[in-house]
Amino acid sequence: MEHYAAPINHLIEELSKLPGIGRKTAQRLAFHILDMKGDQVVRLAQSIVDAKKLIKFCSNCGNMTDKDPCSICGNVKRDKSMICVVEDSRDVAAMERIKEFHGYYHVLHGTISPMDGIGPDEINIKGLITRLNNDVKEVILATNPTIEGEATAMYIARLINPMGIRVTRLAHGIPVGGDIEYADEVTLVKALEGRTQL
Amino acid sequence: MEHYAAPINHLIEELSKLPGIGRKTAQRLAFHILDMKGDQVVRLAQSIVDAKKLIKFCSNCGNMTDKDPCSICGNVKRDKSMICVVEDSRDVAAMERIKEFHGYYHVLHGTISPMDGIGPDEINIKGLITRLNNDVKEVILATNPTIEGEATAMYIARLINPMGIRVTRLAHGIPVGGDIEYADEVTLVKALEGRTQL
Repeated sequence: MEHYAAPINHLIEELSKLPGIGRKTAQRLAFHILDMKGDQVVRLAQSIVDAKKLIKFCSNCGNMTDKDPCSICGNVKRDKSMICVVEDSRDVAAMERIKEFHGYYHVLHGTISPMDGIGPDEINIKGLITRLNNDVKEVILATNPTIEGEATAMYIARLINPMGIRVTRLAHGIPVGGDIEYADEVTLVKALEGRTQL
Repeated sequence: MEHYAAPINHLIEELSKLPGIGRKTAQRLAFHILDMKGDQVVRLAQSIVDAKKLIKFCSNCGNMTDKDPCSICGNVKRDKSMICVVEDSRDVAAMERIKEFHGYYHVLHGTISPMDGIGPDEINIKGLITRLNNDVKEVILATNPTIEGEATAMYIARLINPMGIRVTRLAHGIPVGGDIEYADEVTLVKALEGRTQL
C-alpha cells in the first residue's frame, strides 16, 4: 500500500470504503481507472457527483428522483385507487420490473425499529396518511418480511383500517423454483396457510 | 434498470464498466453512494479525477508516480548496482512489500507479445538499456512466469548479456504453504531443477 504514489493510495483508500470492496479489489479498480482514458475517468467521477447532486426525494411519494414529482407520481395514467408502500427506492424498482402493478408508490425510507431508536415519526408514514383521499381504495404493504418490516406493516394497517381502505400484504410462500425440502419452517407454514385451490 | 431516475441509471452504467463489477454490484454501490454524505461523495469523485490527473510515469524507471523522478529513483541511498525489471507498477509495489530488494526498478509496461502486435519497441526496453552504466552489476528480470513474460525476459537477457552485466531471473518453485500434490507439472519440474541443499 504505502509503496504507491500518494494519489493512488488515496484512491485505493476511498474505493475500499465502498461496501463489498476490499483492499485487493480497490487496488484492482484503482489501476483499472489509471489505465482508462482521461474522458472516461471524468465521466465516471461526474456520474458519481451528479447522482448525489441531482437525486432528491419526490415530495409526494418519497421515491428517489431527479424531478419533482417523480415520473410515477407525475403519470396520470396510473391507477389512483392503489398505493404500494415499500421500504426504499430499490423496492419500487423491483415492483416496476414485474410490470404487474399499475398504481402509485409510497416510500417509507426504513422501518420502525425501536432498537435503533426509529419510531413511526422517523419514517415517512405521515406523508402516506395525508395521501389517502377518496380515490385510494387499497394500500398494499410491501415492506420486507423481517421483524421490523412486519411490525411496520402492522402499525400502518392499524392506522389505515379504520379509514375504510382495504389494506393488504404481499403473499408469503415457497419461491418459484425453490425447493420445499429446503424452505425454512416459517415460510412453509405461511405457504400452507396461503394455499390456493387448483 | 430503466425504473430508476436517469442520474442513478447513468451512475450504475458507469460503475458496471469497472472490472468485476456486475449489474447487481453496480446497483448496490450506486445506492450506497446516494446514501453517503455529500462531502464523502465529492472526496470519492475527486480521488478518481486526481489519481488520473496527477499520476504520470517516472521518466527514469517508468513507474507510476506523482513526482518525477519517482520516490525510488530519487532515493540515493538505494543500491545502484541492481535493477529489477518488472511488467508494471503493481509488481514494483509487490517487490517493495517484501522489503528485501534495495536496488532500483525498471517498469516495462507490458511484455513482448507478437500475437497482440506488441514488439520490443512497444515496451520500455530502450529506456532500460540507456540506464545500464558501469554502476549496474545485475539486472533481475522479474517478468511474470507466462509465455510472454518468459519470452520478454529471454529477449532482454540476450541484449544485456554481451554487456558483461549479470542477468538473473526470479526462482520458480512450490509456493510456500502450497501443496506438492496440487502443484502443476511445470512448476514441479522447475522446483526439482532448482532444488537447494540443506
